[in-house]
Amino acid sequence: MEESRRAQLKEPGLLEHKPTPIPFDDADRLAVASLRGVAIDMVEAARSGHPGAPLGLAPAAWVLFSRFVRHDPAQPDWLGRDRFLLSAGHASALLYGLLHIFGYADMADLKAFRQLGSRTPGHPERRCLPGVEYTTGPLGQGFAGAVGMALAREHLAHLFHPGLFSYRIFVICSDGDLMEGVSHEAAALAGHLGLGNLLIIWDDNGVSIDGPTSLAFTEDVVARFRAYGFATHEVRDGEDLEELASAFQAALDPERPALVRVRTIIGKGAPTKEGTAASHGAPLGPEEAAAAKASYGLDPAVTFHVPPEVYARASALLARGRAERNAWERTFAAWTEEEPERAAELQRILRGEVPEQAREALRLLAASPRPAATRKASGAALEVLSRHLPELVTGSADLSESTATKPASHEPVGRGRWGRHIHFGVREHAMAGAGVGMALEGLRPVLGTFLVFSDYLRPALRIAAMQQARVVFVFTHDSIGVGEDGPTHQPVEHIASLRAMPGLVVIRPADWAETALAWEAALDERGPVALVLTRQEVPALPRPPLAPANGLLRGAYVLLDAGENPDVVLIGSGSEVALCVEAAAVLKEKGVLARVVSMPSWELFLRQPRSYQEEVLPPEIGARVAVEAASPLGWHRWVGADGRVVGLDRFGASGPAREVLSHFGFTAERVAQETLALLEELSSAPGG
Amino acid sequence: MEESRRAQLKEPGLLEHKPTPIPFDDADRLAVASLRGVAIDMVEAARSGHPGAPLGLAPAAWVLFSRFVRHDPAQPDWLGRDRFLLSAGHASALLYGLLHIFGYADMADLKAFRQLGSRTPGHPERRCLPGVEYTTGPLGQGFAGAVGMALAREHLAHLFHPGLFSYRIFVICSDGDLMEGVSHEAAALAGHLGLGNLLIIWDDNGVSIDGPTSLAFTEDVVARFRAYGFATHEVRDGEDLEELASAFQAALDPERPALVRVRTIIGKGAPTKEGTAASHGAPLGPEEAAAAKASYGLDPAVTFHVPPEVYARASALLARGRAERNAWERTFAAWTEEEPERAAELQRILRGEVPEQAREALRLLAASPRPAATRKASGAALEVLSRHLPELVTGSADLSESTATKPASHEPVGRGRWGRHIHFGVREHAMAGAGVGMALEGLRPVLGTFLVFSDYLRPALRIAAMQQARVVFVFTHDSIGVGEDGPTHQPVEHIASLRAMPGLVVIRPADWAETALAWEAALDERGPVALVLTRQEVPALPRPPLAPANGLLRGAYVLLDAGENPDVVLIGSGSEVALCVEAAAVLKEKGVLARVVSMPSWELFLRQPRSYQEEVLPPEIGARVAVEAASPLGWHRWVGADGRVVGLDRFGASGPAREVLSHFGFTAERVAQETLALLEELSSAPGG
Repeated sequence: MEESRRAQLKEPGLLEHKPTPIPFDDADRLAVASLRGVAIDMVEAARSGHPGAPLGLAPAAWVLFSRFVRHDPAQPDWLGRDRFLLSAGHASALLYGLLHIFGYADMADLKAFRQLGSRTPGHPERRCLPGVEYTTGPLGQGFAGAVGMALAREHLAHLFHPGLFSYRIFVICSDGDLMEGVSHEAAALAGHLGLGNLLIIWDDNGVSIDGPTSLAFTEDVVARFRAYGFATHEVRDGEDLEELASAFQAALDPERPALVRVRTIIGKGAPTKEGTAASHGAPLGPEEAAAAKASYGLDPAVTFHVPPEVYARASALLARGRAERNAWERTFAAWTEEEPERAAELQRILRGEVPEQAREALRLLAASPRPAATRKASGAALEVLSRHLPELVTGSADLSESTATKPASHEPVGRGRWGRHIHFGVREHAMAGAGVGMALEGLRPVLGTFLVFSDYLRPALRIAAMQQARVVFVFTHDSIGVGEDGPTHQPVEHIASLRAMPGLVVIRPADWAETALAWEAALDERGPVALVLTRQEVPALPRPPLAPANGLLRGAYVLLDAGENPDVVLIGSGSEVALCVEAAAVLKEKGVLARVVSMPSWELFLRQPRSYQEEVLPPEIGARVAVEAASPLGWHRWVGADGRVVGLDRFGASGPAREVLSHFGFTAERVAQETLALLEELSSAPGG
Repeated sequence: MEESRRAQLKEPGLLEHKPTPIPFDDADRLAVASLRGVAIDMVEAARSGHPGAPLGLAPAAWVLFSRFVRHDPAQPDWLGRDRFLLSAGHASALLYGLLHIFGYADMADLKAFRQLGSRTPGHPERRCLPGVEYTTGPLGQGFAGAVGMALAREHLAHLFHPGLFSYRIFVICSDGDLMEGVSHEAAALAGHLGLGNLLIIWDDNGVSIDGPTSLAFTEDVVARFRAYGFATHEVRDGEDLEELASAFQAALDPERPALVRVRTIIGKGAPTKEGTAASHGAPLGPEEAAAAKASYGLDPAVTFHVPPEVYARASALLARGRAERNAWERTFAAWTEEEPERAAELQRILRGEVPEQAREALRLLAASPRPAATRKASGAALEVLSRHLPELVTGSADLSESTATKPASHEPVGRGRWGRHIHFGVREHAMAGAGVGMALEGLRPVLGTFLVFSDYLRPALRIAAMQQARVVFVFTHDSIGVGEDGPTHQPVEHIASLRAMPGLVVIRPADWAETALAWEAALDERGPVALVLTRQEVPALPRPPLAPANGLLRGAYVLLDAGENPDVVLIGSGSEVALCVEAAAVLKEKGVLARVVSMPSWELFLRQPRSYQEEVLPPEIGARVAVEAASPLGWHRWVGADGRVVGLDRFGASGPAREVLSHFGFTAERVAQETLALLEELSSAPGG
């Protein structure tokens, strides 16, 4: 069975593209004109937006969406649909126009373009409208996400049934997308893996915001993509529907990803702005708008209009998508009947549920704590989870072992070779971007790199947070505890930077048991999670009966109290919790009673009711010291303006970890000393 | 004159490479063996480090540094020296070994490899030792910095004297460097601009940390570089000194940057680890180390040893560098005599001094405030500064106009065409990386993009901060005030993320006058500065006589007081300061006296004496409200745990700016309301 499935995968199962039986005619030309007309109307009405790309791209987008993308507005979420991503998100007016013509959006949506609360925001936001697959705008992100979607298809096709996962991913890119490093990385990866279900259309309009692309972008893009292993095709005239269709047809190569270069004219039809940057990012203005519409044969006085012939053509074209969906539904039903358990598993995955066995396994793991680096504890958790979650796919930017993100059973994904671990190469940004695409298809990607390199992938992390993509980022080597590799590899500002990002949950567990439970918390999140883990070994923390590690699930909890009325609260995260425990012992000798709070996650703690928050951090204990081997930024929220933060506000240093930590003051003695100084300050303050 | 200088520039003034008169012989082979031997010794002694790359690269590095790089240890900072960057910073043991053999470092330095306080940290840190040009380790950064150094040379050659700035930039890269997106961006730029003084050596050892590069890196790198416009060369046997020298010689192409692919064997000589990832990042261990040393013909028992013949050879080879430096000094002296004023200007630039006229011009500008977006105010400041600072070079990642970073007189840099504005294309990361390289050569690069895209360049920003590179980043469109472009383009977490970074000064001026002075502050900094500026217009703030805008230079100041004993302090930055002023008026009507503090820069404020800090934020006024249309992270430092932060902890929305700001509560009414709620809470609190 396993073998036959592998054999099936070798033929990647991409549906052969059936050319549409409807040839191009005036209805198509009218559709293109209408797309242009409403794009102009939208931007003019909003007095804001990007007309240039939609005008230049309208024919290519029409040919692609009407003749190639398999979709059905009656069920926009149809699992078997082709995915269409507009990586050049600034051309949103074009996407919304297409979605309107094909019945996904009302004309009222187009009229509300870029207005607060509308379904047609300035840049496409996933699911703002049915049919919008991906949040785009920051250039290169859609490209990388598409590579992830292409990978996810291969995984799901292998796990379940190739016939159900035979879709393609179509992407429209701008010059800007292809300048961003993340697209280079993602393209290199797609070429390396031979992702034949990926087709990239490059809107080669020769203009970017600053002016002609000759100012900055003169490389031979086609040769570059060939060097990655792409098939490449060219369309000399982006107005020619037949030429476009031929090129797209030729590009449906199941062996290799394809790039189609389409030469277009930005701002097509605008008398003075056509072909220039002036048409890129601002309304054309009434005169240019009117002249442009006239040049398409439209009545400039009529706005937000699509002629009935165009709707009729769209409706006729949709028959193909509907038929394909029906065929797919039949396959799906037959498969479900034949393999009910696997079908149920697929449904569970698509609902995003965590199986109870996975949860139990993590709790079991938490119950047998041992001293270990938290990255190692995380690796142990992953080994366990891998068995219960077939949707769990791991990957690393060339740090698979160091980040402990490759379970032993995960074979590497290769060209035409299925696996559960992706060697992304030293390409953090593409890794994260692809992770987002995989997560949106229902997988649970787990991606590892060093915390210091989280900077390399931040734009994709933000897109993950914005789309609530369930990617778990495993960021190890989380402080100056990295030691000898020195300041270039020692994160300082990164934890604060991650905490600042909306929609991202950051968890920095303190020991083995907390790490196991951090995984449970991570799996339950609806969006991305950053696990921040040590390189160095940490002890298994002493746990009095009232402080089990599942306090982690509430973000912070009292680990231990030195007495009933503590004098001070020491708050730590990760490797510094053990330091707080040591410091509490030092303080006890000096007659100071310290409570130790482990605070692995601010985001989880902030979700708790105030009563719980005050139970952990009683308002009446004003003396508070936070300890974290990282930027102190933000900790005053928990310790107050007068509290102390034992943190680090400069870069680290190269040396053995213990010496470096000690050099920068991360010792029990220093924490105790700061605490005593704080207590003295508070007692001598007026009213203290 | 201008014309003749342009003519000179067309011939980029690269010194013709004079082949060394000393042919390769046993002394060279012994030198290579010694480099390998001490690299092994360093890693073994430190019990930490990366032996693989140094062992594979030793012959290439020896040939390059001994025969091609023009340098003179007697004056490591010689302005005319060739720059040699080890982008593959993990091969630091190789660099330190070379620097030792050529007299820059003592054997004691090598013995202290990776120890706290040593001059030989785990990854090279600029100026940790003389001869270390750039801080490397995070992959791709050295590559991008080198592109900036190449650009800087062209600028300085044009401004002063081509003969003085005729050096080349040599870079050794790893596979990992060439996988990172930033190197793709930087290479595309270098190819586009035809930077003929740049030579990249690719250590093609076929292995990365996860294993063979075939796991992830199978693109045709050489074809890719040709697509960028590079000349490419190959060395089949990285052990062959003659072949290496021939390839390097051929690659000295003044018209185009060059890539030399050198096939090497990672961990060369280690009996079982050679050619495998096992030799990459951990000590070889005593047995492998001994066998490897024996394979080079070295006595394994002798550690940290370089034979006298090697020192003698190095000394003989240095004669060329010394002679070239002497010739350069004569040219420099002659030029100084001929053009004393320009020579003085060069000296001023190299000292990093800001001319008094520039300062005066900014103050004059501040004295004629007007309502304007702060990005516009910044543009006005740049126009003025451009006249006084020939070292000021601008650039943007395709947002020159929006970020107001292209002064009218700045012509674009092009292939063989000098200019003062660089169109980087949509390549933020390469822009920032190149900016670091330019700044380290004495230029003052000013680089513009939207604040939300600062995420794309963070790794280079960190390298800027670590090296104290004086780059001014102009980050505009700084909040949800961006409006219609929506959440993908509206920064939320970015200001906090920037504030978290050590060594970076963040300034968010509130109006025209503050912006002009922010530029003065920026010029005076010894490291990078981020100016955070609005897209939308802000009023010129009311300024009572005691609150001139130069309070900005202290980071925060009292803008206005509603009375002598204020009830509350409202603290704002940027566009929200005007909101605080409005809110204070609303509060006054309700009988509440509010002080308004403008706080453009936390970093500058933290440098002030405590007495000044308490003057601005008196400890006795516990009621404090901070207002910033951004993540609230960190503001509790200023308002206390009980204070209020009117911030934003989620992503924004697409709509007209005013509506969006209002929707998220950035109105005078809301600020007043929060203030009243706080005052009530405090007055009802026990002891309040």
